[in-house]
Order: sequence, then C-alpha cells, then structure tokens
Amino acid sequence: MLNDILLKIENPNQQVIEEARKHLDSLAKPLGSLGKLEDIAAQVAGIRGMVHPQLHKKCTIIMASDHGIVEEGIACAPPEVTAIQTINILKNLTGICAISNSNGSDIKVVDIGVKVDLNHPELVQRKVRYGTANFAKGPAMEREEAIRGLEIGIEMVRDLVDEGYDLLGTGEMGIGNTSCSSAVYMAFTGSSAEIAVGKGGGITVEAFQLKRKVIKEALALNNPNPEDPLDVLTKVGGLDLIGMAGCFIGAAYYKVPIVIDGFISAAAALAAYRLNPKVKGYMIPSHMSLEPGYIRIMDEIGLEPVLHLDMRLGEGTGCPIAFSIIEAALGVLNNMATFQQAVIDEDHLVDIRKEEPAIQKSSKKEKHL
Amino acid sequence: MLNDILLKIENPNQQVIEEARKHLDSLAKPLGSLGKLEDIAAQVAGIRGMVHPQLHKKCTIIMASDHGIVEEGIACAPPEVTAIQTINILKNLTGICAISNSNGSDIKVVDIGVKVDLNHPELVQRKVRYGTANFAKGPAMEREEAIRGLEIGIEMVRDLVDEGYDLLGTGEMGIGNTSCSSAVYMAFTGSSAEIAVGKGGGITVEAFQLKRKVIKEALALNNPNPEDPLDVLTKVGGLDLIGMAGCFIGAAYYKVPIVIDGFISAAAALAAYRLNPKVKGYMIPSHMSLEPGYIRIMDEIGLEPVLHLDMRLGEGTGCPIAFSIIEAALGVLNNMATFQQAVIDEDHLVDIRKEEPAIQKSSKKEKHL
Repeated sequence: MLNDILLKIENPNQQVIEEARKHLDSLAKPLGSLGKLEDIAAQVAGIRGMVHPQLHKKCTIIMASDHGIVEEGIACAPPEVTAIQTINILKNLTGICAISNSNGSDIKVVDIGVKVDLNHPELVQRKVRYGTANFAKGPAMEREEAIRGLEIGIEMVRDLVDEGYDLLGTGEMGIGNTSCSSAVYMAFTGSSAEIAVGKGGGITVEAFQLKRKVIKEALALNNPNPEDPLDVLTKVGGLDLIGMAGCFIGAAYYKVPIVIDGFISAAAALAAYRLNPKVKGYMIPSHMSLEPGYIRIMDEIGLEPVLHLDMRLGEGTGCPIAFSIIEAALGVLNNMATFQQAVIDEDHLVDIRKEEPAIQKSSKKEKHL
Repeated sequence: MLNDILLKIENPNQQVIEEARKHLDSLAKPLGSLGKLEDIAAQVAGIRGMVHPQLHKKCTIIMASDHGIVEEGIACAPPEVTAIQTINILKNLTGICAISNSNGSDIKVVDIGVKVDLNHPELVQRKVRYGTANFAKGPAMEREEAIRGLEIGIEMVRDLVDEGYDLLGTGEMGIGNTSCSSAVYMAFTGSSAEIAVGKGGGITVEAFQLKRKVIKEALALNNPNPEDPLDVLTKVGGLDLIGMAGCFIGAAYYKVPIVIDGFISAAAALAAYRLNPKVKGYMIPSHMSLEPGYIRIMDEIGLEPVLHLDMRLGEGTGCPIAFSIIEAALGVLNNMATFQQAVIDEDHLVDIRKEEPAIQKSSKKEKHL
C-alpha cells in the first residue's frame, strides 16, 4: 500500500496556483503586499485544485508513542508521562486542547506505540508495538513496523478527509521523541550532534551532554542508510515521528494542506520529503521552534516558518495558530475586491477631483497603493 | 483633556502579571515552553487586572486621512485613493475586511482628515482638517489640531470600550503616510533617511531617492523638537498617525490591550510612547513589516513582532491575525490544566508502573515534560 501511494503522489496543481496568483495580483492592493499570506493562499488553491477553495473543518492529528531510548536517561520526564499526557489530551486538559479550542479546531489522538494500554472512547487505537526498542542498543523497530506506522498516518488522513476535514496539522506526545528526531535528522543529513541535538523539554547540562553522546554512538552502531528513508526510520526513528511522516504522505495523496508543528513534526516532514519530495507542496510550516535542529530541517526542505513565538512544547501546538493564518490567507483570496470591483459609487465622494485618474483606471505601476 | 489623561496612565498591574506567570508556571508543560504565548497571556492579565481575563469583542480602528506631502510626488498612488479605499473598507472590500471577517473581528473606520467629504452610514466623522499641509513647505498642521487628533483616538477607544470591545488594533488608510511616519521616526531618534525611509506601497527608484531627499529637507526646514512629541507630530506628522497614537494612549488609559500593525502604526506607537512610556505595557506588536524602519521602531520601544509574513499593506491587516494569537494565549492561561489537575484516572491506564513517580508528584525539574 505504501509504495503504491508514494508512486501516485502528484505536485499541487501548478496551473491553479498560477491562476490564484493572477487573481491575487488583481486585488486592490500593492502587488505582493500581503506577502506570505498570498503564498499560502496560492498554495492551498493548488492543493485543493480550485482557485477559490473553502476550508470547512480543521484538525490536528496527535501521534502518541514511547521511546526505548529514554532508558539512557536523556529525557526530561519519566516515560510514564507519555501515557498520562495522552489521556490528558483526550480529557481536553493540555496545551494543544486550549489552543485548538480557542479557534474551533479539532484534535484526533492516535495511540501508535504507547508502552501501556490506554483506554478512552475517543482514542484511536493503532498501536504498532509497546514503545520502540532502545536504539542505543540496536534498531528501534522492525522495517515492517516502520511501514505499518507510515500506513497508519496515511489511513488517519484518509479517515479525516472522509469526515470532511480539509485542513490538517501534525502533533505528538512521546517522552524521548526529540532524541529520535535529532537522530533521524543526523542520519539523513550527516549533521553533527552539536548542531542537531537540543535540550528538548528541558534537561540538565549533564543530561544534555549525555544525550548528544548517546545519539552519536547510536548512529554509529546502527549505521542507517541515508538513501533508504525506511532504514533510517526503522533504526533510529520513533513511532510518533513515523506516524506523522505518514500523515504528510497521506495529505499529499489525498490533496489536503497539512501544517508542520515543531522539531519532531519537522523531522517527520523531512522523512516524508525523502520518501517523495512532492509532499513538500502540501506542507505549511507554522512556528520557529526553539529546538536548534528545527530551522535546519526547514532549510533542508526549503520552508520558512511564519510564527516566531519561542515555543517548544510540541503536541501540535503551532498548528491551530497556523490554521488561523491560513484562514486569513483564504479570506484574502476569496473575499477581497479586485481593482475592477473596487470602483467607488459617486455618491460616496463629494468634491473629489474628477479629472485625476481614479483607481480603476490606473496603470499597473499606479496600482501600487 | 489630553494632559489629564496622559498624567493618569498607569502601568499594567504588575502583581496580576506575576500571579498570572505563577499560574502559567503551574500548568502541565515544561516551564516557559509556550514562549511568547505566555508573555502575551500575562501581559493581557496585567492590563485587564485579573489573572484569568476573557476577551469578548475585538476591533481594528482604521484612521483615514490625507497628506499634503504627496504634492512632492513621493507616494505610490494618486491621493484620491485615500478616499476611494476608505469607502471600500466600509463596503467590506479590502484586505483588512477579508482578514477581519476570517476570524470574526470588527473594524471601525474614522475620517480624521481625508481631504474630501465622505458619506457612509458607518463612517465615524471626526475630520480635524481636509488633509495636512505639505510639510516640505512648513508645518503639517497647527498644534491644536495635533492635540485634537490625539483626543479623537482616545475618544474612539472610550466609545469602543463602552460598546464592550476589549481587544483593539490600529490601522490606517492614507496615501503618503509612510513619508510622515519616516519623518516622525527620524525626528524622534535622529535616524538617517537612508535607514528610516522605505518604498512604502511601492515606488520607482527615482521617486524613492526623491522621497528620502524631501523628508530630509523637510526635517531641516521644520526642525521639530524631539523632546516635545507634540511639536514633532504638528510639524511632520499625519492625522492618521496621530489618531492612532491617540488610540494607544486611550488603550492605556482605559486598560485594554492594543495591537500594533505595520510601519505607520509603529511610528504612532513611538509617538505615544514618547508622550508617556507607560503606554508600552498595553501594546502588542503583530507582524514584522517589510518597511525597513519598522523593526528599528520596535527596537526603540523594546518590542518584538511574532508574525513574519513579509506584509506591507497597512490598513491594520496584521491586527486580526494577532487577535487569533492573543486568543490562543488566553486559551492557555484560562483552560490548560495545572500539574495538580493533570492527575489521570487509574482506569485509563493499564499496566503503568505505579512505583515510578507520576507526573503530579514530580519535582520541579521533572516537571519539564
């Protein structure tokens, strides 16, 4: 299934993007003066295959899983917190809940690899295994498990699209997941631990040094093949990251825009991009994470975040904020007047010097308000 | 009236800010991991004087006026466009309309100095004069007119607060207003035209060079006193900018948060800050304008924009986008669970190793998820 879908992914519709850009250029404003709002609007048009797309339902998918690497003492919290916070998300108690509620977006929580069984009516049960193995001692999982993780992400997008969702975001809950994200980034790019490893949720100086050492040694031990993304994910990935990578692939296949959150989400986006570079056209970055590897991954894919909020919580918290920006962008595309429509009724203007050029008659240069 | 209000402005309630920060630190997340969302939440709490403020109605105030300086040929569009676009805003056709509609925020349009009479039932008629004088040839207006412009901004905030608005933004419509904004910034800081003057809505290389020269010479001619903000505003200001400065003062007096849009709004914020530095605590910057002087003004006041969207349209277009971020910030403050509340029901967890510390028993360090 995975290979079939990877083969069928197409770029967003370039002709629609150009038509949308033409429309944006015809709006009553200086050319390009709404900057990235215009880029996002044209991108979403191309993804949806129509010049004036509407967005109806928005959802952040949260992949929850545990990481064997936490045995090495490099995480910021005890591993039990994965399960506790996963349930807390379902109970509407956490950061992603509060932010999603603030603008009417939904969340969907998937147990893709938590190390204990969880029980909640709204939890999507898709456990591939009870946490990954400790990749400091060998591969994190079997290759078949990584494939299954990607397929779960694709299936989540399929199901949400079936439910009418047309704007998605990617989030995670998994103590230890900045470690596998750094390892995945290093495996793909050859970047050093000094550049790629950050403090995650917040750890001591000693734990930080240990984290760098552990990841460096784990990569030497596993020796993942950067030309084979599945090998990278199998050996040093995490199931949350892999599930998110699957969401990016699914979004490209089902043609819905999908938002990148922070560092783990970015590492997942990089994995998806390495599996098929065409997924890039469906991705919309949100916030500039404080985790140092984040911006390097964005550079690697060629994307630029629009929010500078110094956030580093994860859970997908950047996504609902980006949803608001995407809605503003589509508002511009769909509801602003063109220069032609912006003609003013004469009874609104008294004494205006009629001999001077009115806006609707202006040349292109004069259109720069 | 102006002096009385300037004297009565207080800083946001520092004790409430500290209580809000304490609450934010008690939430089930790594300390400070929501970055500027936490800063904004604490700031709004301090402004509203309560640890858990609610926001009910949000509005961008758009000050419209003409600028005599356009006679010098340094603007991007014919001056008639001020009147045309002011009416277009009222007809729900422009960028600020589309973006405000995307998240349910309102707009209020004020004719504070358009050079023709305008006629629309929803236009707030507060014309101080029919456009400013050309400040390349003498003062832009009389000192009494500048005072009246500031008072109009204060009165607008008063009226909106009376109508139940508790989150405000500042926008403008006025062909030529980047010129007076650059002049105001240069007058206050001694900055050079090379640094302070940008291309505004978009002008030719020749017009750009002329714009720098005209502004430089106008400042030499008028010689405004940087120690007397009213002298600066009188000699090289614009009525839109002055009305917005009044809004910042009014927001501080009536204790509501107020968002800064782009360059003109930033210059107005600087003028208000020079009239009374306490207004700073009520200001929330939105987007990093492409106009080069913008970020220098932010540095001057000591503020940092959170949105990097390469926008340069004006009209207040950054404000409704920032409103969504502020709502997300208050969502965090008001609706996230504390570590204590984040206790999980036992029936949700099967097999969790009870002997390990659960999140609610963790030490401060372990609370960094």
